[in-house]
Amino acid sequence: MLKALRCNSLERCFQRVTSLAEARQALAEPQTILWLDLFNPSQEELQDVGAAFHLHPLAVEDASHKHQRPKIEEYDSFYLLVFYTVQAEPSPERLRVCELSIFLGERYLITVHSEPIPELEETEQRWTRNVRQLEGGVIVLLYSLLDTIVDQYFPVLDAMVEQAEALEDRLFSGELRQRSFTQDLLALKKRFLTLRRIAGPERDVLNVLTNRDNPLFNEHALLYFRDVYDHIMRVADTVDLYRDQLSSTMDANLSIVSNDLNKTMRTLTAASIVLVVDALLAGIWGMNFEYMPELHWTYGYALALTVMAVISLLLLLIFRRLR
Amino acid sequence: MLKALRCNSLERCFQRVTSLAEARQALAEPQTILWLDLFNPSQEELQDVGAAFHLHPLAVEDASHKHQRPKIEEYDSFYLLVFYTVQAEPSPERLRVCELSIFLGERYLITVHSEPIPELEETEQRWTRNVRQLEGGVIVLLYSLLDTIVDQYFPVLDAMVEQAEALEDRLFSGELRQRSFTQDLLALKKRFLTLRRIAGPERDVLNVLTNRDNPLFNEHALLYFRDVYDHIMRVADTVDLYRDQLSSTMDANLSIVSNDLNKTMRTLTAASIVLVVDALLAGIWGMNFEYMPELHWTYGYALALTVMAVISLLLLLIFRRLR
Amino acid sequence: MLKALRCNSLERCFQRVTSLAEARQALAEPQTILWLDLFNPSQEELQDVGAAFHLHPLAVEDASHKHQRPKIEEYDSFYLLVFYTVQAEPSPERLRVCELSIFLGERYLITVHSEPIPELEETEQRWTRNVRQLEGGVIVLLYSLLDTIVDQYFPVLDAMVEQAEALEDRLFSGELRQRSFTQDLLALKKRFLTLRRIAGPERDVLNVLTNRDNPLFNEHALLYFRDVYDHIMRVADTVDLYRDQLSSTMDANLSIVSNDLNKTMRTLTAASIVLVVDALLAGIWGMNFEYMPELHWTYGYALALTVMAVISLLLLLIFRRLR
Amino acid sequence: MLKALRCNSLERCFQRVTSLAEARQALAEPQTILWLDLFNPSQEELQDVGAAFHLHPLAVEDASHKHQRPKIEEYDSFYLLVFYTVQAEPSPERLRVCELSIFLGERYLITVHSEPIPELEETEQRWTRNVRQLEGGVIVLLYSLLDTIVDQYFPVLDAMVEQAEALEDRLFSGELRQRSFTQDLLALKKRFLTLRRIAGPERDVLNVLTNRDNPLFNEHALLYFRDVYDHIMRVADTVDLYRDQLSSTMDANLSIVSNDLNKTMRTLTAASIVLVVDALLAGIWGMNFEYMPELHWTYGYALALTVMAVISLLLLLIFRRLR
Amino acid sequence: MLKALRCNSLERCFQRVTSLAEARQALAEPQTILWLDLFNPSQEELQDVGAAFHLHPLAVEDASHKHQRPKIEEYDSFYLLVFYTVQAEPSPERLRVCELSIFLGERYLITVHSEPIPELEETEQRWTRNVRQLEGGVIVLLYSLLDTIVDQYFPVLDAMVEQAEALEDRLFSGELRQRSFTQDLLALKKRFLTLRRIAGPERDVLNVLTNRDNPLFNEHALLYFRDVYDHIMRVADTVDLYRDQLSSTMDANLSIVSNDLNKTMRTLTAASIVLVVDALLAGIWGMNFEYMPELHWTYGYALALTVMAVISLLLLLIFRRLR
Repeated sequence: MLKALRCNSLERCFQRVTSLAEARQALAEPQTILWLDLFNPSQEELQDVGAAFHLHPLAVEDASHKHQRPKIEEYDSFYLLVFYTVQAEPSPERLRVCELSIFLGERYLITVHSEPIPELEETEQRWTRNVRQLEGGVIVLLYSLLDTIVDQYFPVLDAMVEQAEALEDRLFSGELRQRSFTQDLLALKKRFLTLRRIAGPERDVLNVLTNRDNPLFNEHALLYFRDVYDHIMRVADTVDLYRDQLSSTMDANLSIVSNDLNKTMRTLTAASIVLVVDALLAGIWGMNFEYMPELHWTYGYALALTVMAVISLLLLLIFRRLR
Repeated sequence: MLKALRCNSLERCFQRVTSLAEARQALAEPQTILWLDLFNPSQEELQDVGAAFHLHPLAVEDASHKHQRPKIEEYDSFYLLVFYTVQAEPSPERLRVCELSIFLGERYLITVHSEPIPELEETEQRWTRNVRQLEGGVIVLLYSLLDTIVDQYFPVLDAMVEQAEALEDRLFSGELRQRSFTQDLLALKKRFLTLRRIAGPERDVLNVLTNRDNPLFNEHALLYFRDVYDHIMRVADTVDLYRDQLSSTMDANLSIVSNDLNKTMRTLTAASIVLVVDALLAGIWGMNFEYMPELHWTYGYALALTVMAVISLLLLLIFRRLR
Repeated sequence: MLKALRCNSLERCFQRVTSLAEARQALAEPQTILWLDLFNPSQEELQDVGAAFHLHPLAVEDASHKHQRPKIEEYDSFYLLVFYTVQAEPSPERLRVCELSIFLGERYLITVHSEPIPELEETEQRWTRNVRQLEGGVIVLLYSLLDTIVDQYFPVLDAMVEQAEALEDRLFSGELRQRSFTQDLLALKKRFLTLRRIAGPERDVLNVLTNRDNPLFNEHALLYFRDVYDHIMRVADTVDLYRDQLSSTMDANLSIVSNDLNKTMRTLTAASIVLVVDALLAGIWGMNFEYMPELHWTYGYALALTVMAVISLLLLLIFRRLR
Repeated sequence: MLKALRCNSLERCFQRVTSLAEARQALAEPQTILWLDLFNPSQEELQDVGAAFHLHPLAVEDASHKHQRPKIEEYDSFYLLVFYTVQAEPSPERLRVCELSIFLGERYLITVHSEPIPELEETEQRWTRNVRQLEGGVIVLLYSLLDTIVDQYFPVLDAMVEQAEALEDRLFSGELRQRSFTQDLLALKKRFLTLRRIAGPERDVLNVLTNRDNPLFNEHALLYFRDVYDHIMRVADTVDLYRDQLSSTMDANLSIVSNDLNKTMRTLTAASIVLVVDALLAGIWGMNFEYMPELHWTYGYALALTVMAVISLLLLLIFRRLR
Repeated sequence: MLKALRCNSLERCFQRVTSLAEARQALAEPQTILWLDLFNPSQEELQDVGAAFHLHPLAVEDASHKHQRPKIEEYDSFYLLVFYTVQAEPSPERLRVCELSIFLGERYLITVHSEPIPELEETEQRWTRNVRQLEGGVIVLLYSLLDTIVDQYFPVLDAMVEQAEALEDRLFSGELRQRSFTQDLLALKKRFLTLRRIAGPERDVLNVLTNRDNPLFNEHALLYFRDVYDHIMRVADTVDLYRDQLSSTMDANLSIVSNDLNKTMRTLTAASIVLVVDALLAGIWGMNFEYMPELHWTYGYALALTVMAVISLLLLLIFRRLR
């Protein structure tokens, strides 16, 4: 599905474009900035666009393959960027990551993706707003896009941070069901890892974009991309903090489990010994020796029960002190 | 809330300033150094200040957002620094970190923060004192500010170090309550991690400030910032040492817990076996066989008890030796 | 076994070559690109080829030794590359890695290997196809070869990723047989490690190949090798993700094992105490004291059994609540 | 306490100096090299020395504060070095580290420390000896000092290495008392960590000193400092080896503790089951059923005991085989 | 013990030299390359050689001290290299490392060692062989020496790799004796660590030797040292792989030990509960209540035993299902 938007960068007005032919025509006007969005395009559509914009076949092939890493690659007349959007999915809790290939030419930007990406609508709004404030042509659009994408990481990350804190609280609440705890922890760790592996290379991409030697951007635009760079750095930092913290939580969990076992065993020790001592006494007075004088005492039985009770209490006191 | 202080750098005298208009006027005098402190400013106040000092909108927006990372960013006519102050909070023990955005111009310094920061008053005192000793204009103020902030890390860090040592002592005191121990350890580790994540990027900021190629500072001022750099390095070093040490403590704890379990089980083994052996004897002599000659001996009962006692003692001796 | 293919790079037609002599002759024609494949060559064959192509003795010796690391080495008139192909073997599951030594001259490429490598046939097809699309001589062949090799990593890697996910599911399925689980996990980890140790140095090789200062390649060819570089980076990244994940799985397993032990012990505690309490009561009423009034009650026995049952139920309720 | 030594670098003769005034006078003679040692100086003494040698106030302040990191800092006319001496303290075993601040001028060296440092006397002897062999002025003194300090690390390190080996032997001796073992291991690890944190930055200092671009030293002197650098590298290497080894020891300990627990439990399993089986038999023959023919057999009792013994032996055999 | 060999690099003929005087004389002839081997030399011998070859006293001192790190140091007219040979010792299994100091002058190479090193004889053979093939003077000798040393690492490493694999097999064989397993694993890990700490710095040395800016070697010689570099890289790589693998083995061992404990406990749980239930029944029918009708039934006893057997079987079935 092809969707396009053209912007006259002098008059700062926008116009929808509905076909590739129209888009090519628009690009012929020197003041026009064009954004072409391809949602789940067929191989043919992609080839056509590639041909129309003189995109390198290798770059077009990259855009049609999934599971690239976030990257930026320089070609003759354009750059190819791969970025990821991230959304939290509720059950089972996992991250839905969508790949977005971006062709950045001098006056056009082409986005290719195989899944619907809500960030793109937001980008459109930001672009129309930003175009009034910022100079520069297609760079404003690229900035609007990347900024929107990275901004959407924060609600996802905040939710994960909350879950990490909740997990830790569960650890000390004394009522954790171990198996689900470990499972949740492992799954959360995986989500942090996933986010880390997106944020890491994207930071490198932004590092390239904010490099002063980059001929694409003027000094002014650099500041904006530095801002996005800063955001992605915060994502990476927070992820690192919580990955470390989750590892500690896992270790702490092991200590607590081992210690619970210890407590259980102490209780067993104490209880068994008390009971077995009493049982031994009962066994002794149940022996069939002929001459066992206490068996014939009137209060023998009462005395026996008392002895048992007293010894039990004494043992319990001793165990309590030892604990 | 706006608070400002101006300093005539020739005559080295200070004067309070109470409004933004006055501040702008003060800045018009070429010898004046101005410090503007904005406590919890509204968006409008911030915009006004931004306009008055020609601050870049992106920088102003950064200052109004929380949760930046410590950083330094160069803009056309000023630098934006983000630094953190740290305070220990007693219960639950955690670190209160306050963000401080600093705009550093040629003759002004603007601090923006949303929480009260006691370090700022101390900074004022140090500035008035330092201005007599050190040459250079706004740099003396910046040095006074950063030095005060970093100096305040040490009492916090020292308290954490003490807690780490106390935790380790608890580990070997033999009387630790495991769950609270693990919880305290985990919380302390988190505090060290938090401090590390502040000290790390701040060190980078100071690295930039002490870089000889930096046109902002003269050779003389460099020495001072190198001193602050050195302090932050010590913070980072100590934090690293104790994070490592806390991990070892966690591991040691697991060994000790496992070993305690082992001891408990050995005790149980010994005690159960002794008791069950005695109970078995009692059971044997409690059997109802017709021909059990010892049951009819006069001293059979006494002998039985003696046998039990002797076997128990023997077993206990054997177990003691085995241990 | 020698197999060779020559390509007239102007007319883009291919021809089989069957002997070394013929190959040398082919190379004399300036438009010819030659691919020589040596499968399990004898020392003599290798020497002959080395002499015919003026290969350095050290490079020839390297090619005849196994267990080199992936590498690229520059010699006077050629490069020596070592690359690895990877295949999954079913039982016992392990990776079969085959070493491929590649001599890259200005107009020839010589591959040496001691095991059959199916990727080579695929390479031949790709070369004949690519030669029509891409300019440049032997570089197209090298690209076809390396691209084929690296592409073959993905099915292997995908299978390993699936196994890693399956292992994790087994962990929480509650029905895992521990010993085989640990064994599988350890073996899988080893396979990831093996793949990592191939992908890491190969990435470095491709880094050299895509270096702009490299005189071997024109700008155009660089793009292609950058694509291969990107693929190998993805392999390395995925491997790192899953090595980390497998470590977490191993840790989680330990927690779960410890916790299962805990549960077992709790059950034992509860069951033993209930039973021993009942046994104690039976022991008490089995004592031979003369005056034990309840023994003579008509419903004494029934009462005794009732008391035992009631106490057992009470204890079970208490234990359930404690859990 | 001020102590000073002057050396005429031409005549190579030494002379004690007793006051600051005398020291200043000595320095006026162009051939004189002066070593000033300040032991636990008052703030005033330090200020006086600072003024007399034109030391930067920041450097003087650094020297009066404790807990600096090992470092080298360049000032206008001198360098400030901070180095540490290390001594082993017996009980509780820990490292006593003493800080030594060193001001290195063109013709003077000032050492400041707050604790007695035996290495300084040794340094004096080495200086007088070295001055005869080596050219160059104050550099010979600095070399003598640093070399002496670093040489003293080796006996301390060797003792720690021995303790690490002894700990490992204890681990497998089968007679370790766990709590003290873990405590010793943790304390030893901390000592290694402390030494590491001294050796690391000191290596960096020596790296600066051996840097060829350093204008302070001639080619000849470089060789000597490279030797010290080499020694400190060996310290750092050995420390890293044993820190790694101690971590493995800790892990191995956990395995052994867990396994001991396992053994204990197996023994308990075997012993309990044997005893409880016997007790069950005794209980059965202690039942009060009217018709239990074996109770009336003449050899019933003997047979019962025999049955118990035989079953016990059989069970023991089975358990031994299972183990 | 002094042993020397001279080689006329033009005529490529070799001659034994028996005294230092002769060696000096030989060196006077411009075409001569001299190899001097000092086995366990006295301080005096070393001094004499040092004087004869104008070696720097610091370098001579280094050569007489043991426990240097592998290194290369440039002096005025020569290089000092320290390398290590490695041999496997059988019982207790450990690595015997021998230090070899190498003075490399323009036309001489002096080796100093305090233990017999079999690699040196091999080196002599290789030198005489290589000298015929390779140009260049003393460099051929150095190459022959280093190549021989590094080649000898491989059999040692291969044996260690085999032991690592054997350890892993023992882990899953189900018949491991834990203590010796852990001890072997720890000892093997230490051996890998030792080898790593030799290979690491030696790689750095070879990095220096293969550096193109090095004036010592011509382009041709570089290729040879690059080959040695490659070998040492393989050693380091393999060591890293197996150190990682041994850590995983240690972790897996802990999981298996914990799980074995779990199994043991489950067996205990099942067995105890079955037996105690039976014992309880026996205890109940052993009570002395007057009115216990079943005691008087003719088949009461048989029924009781049947009940016990049936309940035992039922419980065992339940436990089997639960497992």
